[in-house]
Amino acid sequence: MDKKILECVKTLENVQAKSPLVHSITNLVVTNTTANILLAVGASPLMSHAPEELEEIVGISQALVINIGTLDMPQINSMKLAMQYAKEKNVPCVLDPVGAGASALRTNTAQELISLGKPAIIRGNSSEILALAQVQNSTSRGVDASDSVKSAEKIAQELAKEHKCTISVSGESDYVTDGVYSAEISTKEKGKLPLSLITKITGMGCSCTAITGACLAVQPDSFIAGVTAMAIMKAANSVAIQKAEGPASLQLALIDALYTLKPEDIQEYIDFKECR
Amino acid sequence: MDKKILECVKTLENVQAKSPLVHSITNLVVTNTTANILLAVGASPLMSHAPEELEEIVGISQALVINIGTLDMPQINSMKLAMQYAKEKNVPCVLDPVGAGASALRTNTAQELISLGKPAIIRGNSSEILALAQVQNSTSRGVDASDSVKSAEKIAQELAKEHKCTISVSGESDYVTDGVYSAEISTKEKGKLPLSLITKITGMGCSCTAITGACLAVQPDSFIAGVTAMAIMKAANSVAIQKAEGPASLQLALIDALYTLKPEDIQEYIDFKECR
Amino acid sequence: MDKKILECVKTLENVQAKSPLVHSITNLVVTNTTANILLAVGASPLMSHAPEELEEIVGISQALVINIGTLDMPQINSMKLAMQYAKEKNVPCVLDPVGAGASALRTNTAQELISLGKPAIIRGNSSEILALAQVQNSTSRGVDASDSVKSAEKIAQELAKEHKCTISVSGESDYVTDGVYSAEISTKEKGKLPLSLITKITGMGCSCTAITGACLAVQPDSFIAGVTAMAIMKAANSVAIQKAEGPASLQLALIDALYTLKPEDIQEYIDFKECR
Repeated sequence: MDKKILECVKTLENVQAKSPLVHSITNLVVTNTTANILLAVGASPLMSHAPEELEEIVGISQALVINIGTLDMPQINSMKLAMQYAKEKNVPCVLDPVGAGASALRTNTAQELISLGKPAIIRGNSSEILALAQVQNSTSRGVDASDSVKSAEKIAQELAKEHKCTISVSGESDYVTDGVYSAEISTKEKGKLPLSLITKITGMGCSCTAITGACLAVQPDSFIAGVTAMAIMKAANSVAIQKAEGPASLQLALIDALYTLKPEDIQEYIDFKECR
Repeated sequence: MDKKILECVKTLENVQAKSPLVHSITNLVVTNTTANILLAVGASPLMSHAPEELEEIVGISQALVINIGTLDMPQINSMKLAMQYAKEKNVPCVLDPVGAGASALRTNTAQELISLGKPAIIRGNSSEILALAQVQNSTSRGVDASDSVKSAEKIAQELAKEHKCTISVSGESDYVTDGVYSAEISTKEKGKLPLSLITKITGMGCSCTAITGACLAVQPDSFIAGVTAMAIMKAANSVAIQKAEGPASLQLALIDALYTLKPEDIQEYIDFKECR
Repeated sequence: MDKKILECVKTLENVQAKSPLVHSITNLVVTNTTANILLAVGASPLMSHAPEELEEIVGISQALVINIGTLDMPQINSMKLAMQYAKEKNVPCVLDPVGAGASALRTNTAQELISLGKPAIIRGNSSEILALAQVQNSTSRGVDASDSVKSAEKIAQELAKEHKCTISVSGESDYVTDGVYSAEISTKEKGKLPLSLITKITGMGCSCTAITGACLAVQPDSFIAGVTAMAIMKAANSVAIQKAEGPASLQLALIDALYTLKPEDIQEYIDFKECR
């Protein structure tokens, strides 16, 4: 598995070196955060949702990020169009099914976008991933996770096989799988405040998704791209938590840490396994 | 009035303990700030405006926040729908009539939403509250207040009686009333920079409204909920101003302070009175 | 040229003293940042895009800021309406053609808004300015500049003459011209991190545009307004870079620095010339 770790390191190196153009159609809460996170990690963000320019914008981009956090009908239309263009032009796509399970519109839209657009990576919290698999006892509550990552591992492997994609599940420990391999990305408490303070900043899951898009833009192996992105966030959070006095100072320190992160810093957070 | 103070303390305790789901339809300037403020105070934010999912989203929420700061016709439609569902499902609602008085669209929309949706609390600055009461000599100028809170007290009492709701007016000192009782929420200068520095951060009135929603989610007495929310902001600002070097560092310190605030910390800022 | 420098100083004095109301129709990424930047510099921000209220909102504003960063058809319609009202009511307007060159929709919309609305200032990066002049070998790539400011100087002079307006080009050194006079606004490295760190924060070009709007609101000479705005940002960045540890702490320090900036602080960054 050492080779896979090195591929992850190489992926972050390439994001920083190539500054790929990442096109996002995302929610109204995190547009600014998404752009700043992408810039900090080394990528070049571009937000665009007008159907009239999507073909051109997708055409100049190296990856597409779709996030349904504040979806409405015009936006769903733009997402469908963008994903179709991305499929045609071989631009890799990551989908964040924010709030799947919280409303039929969200669950159905996420499923429709998956069928239609064939995303390379689906990235969500455990409740969202369980909702996509239509697990009935999921306890989804709004846009925050209420199921453990552990409970979603088996489902994630099945979903990955079914959709021939990578599934990336964020939580206290993150879990990424392509159905053949899996990785757990985790860290240890280091500051006076708990690592879970990051859940008190809005859009941190969405930020994982954006970084996943940046990695996917330079790494054709979607599993490696997915693992790299989660390790980047875990590494930055580990640095930032030591400077935080609350959620706002954590967010500031996190973005600064993403900017100063060295590719080799992410190695220690990743633990690869074969799926059984 | 000591009993009322204790109810305020209990209200913040409950926000922190129960982490209520607060559904917001708010303006484009403050979506991110609103979510982060709600998380810092202990609540769980959810943004949604698609008519297709509003019934479900309102149904899983403990309070609804409506803010007309960047209204347009589709958003007005969503606000009406959400407020109607909230009324049907007994989900309490707070309305922020941002910019009422600055355009006929804003004033009329605010009045229509009040008639239709029967919000438990109307929360605005003095100019907005005067505009709702159609006081002709209000000097509203854009979205910032240009009338003193003092000049709006009597009008606020009358509006509260007319609409059987709580009126919450923000300013140097805040004024909250249900027409029977009232409270002044105020603080003393403590830092090298003035407390009014908070007016140089966008969306701080909107943040008061969001916190009001969080309190309303756990406190059926809308007057107590309204007072608690303003005291939370005053307490956090009192802490934050001592660390600020300008508006951006104040905002950071304010969100951190909201996160670390203890329920009993809010007591000293509240002064209850009976309306004459 | 000493008189021009003093006019720039006077312009910032007037922004701080008069707190002009600046109406913005801007992109979804920077709504919050734009409002906070305007407040920090001393102006009063107002965001509004509903066609139903644009005549009133333009009527109470001292300047209009139009930014096409996340344009769509309803927003283009609002921008056209607002610019027409601004022209009728003699409210000066600044246009930021974000991403011109990245799609036909952006290039064409920018050109149509210029013809229709006669903005007093067009403010963009070098790639956007070259795209407006339909320079074929521009290497525009998304919304970030990929052409040097130097390469855009001659074109900027020609555009200024053609449209009888001021052209303001941001970059490592900024270049502002009305076709008769020009100014270079530049600064020296001072911190451990490079001044170009500012390009790792989203919306900093948009912030220049917003400040340009604030200056235009109090300064009828659009060339002086344009130069003042760029000098304000250069001065604030020079202070902020010394406190930054990454892009997020730079943004915080920048907004704090804008708030504490003294009018005379901007003089040293400006170098006026006559156009040849």
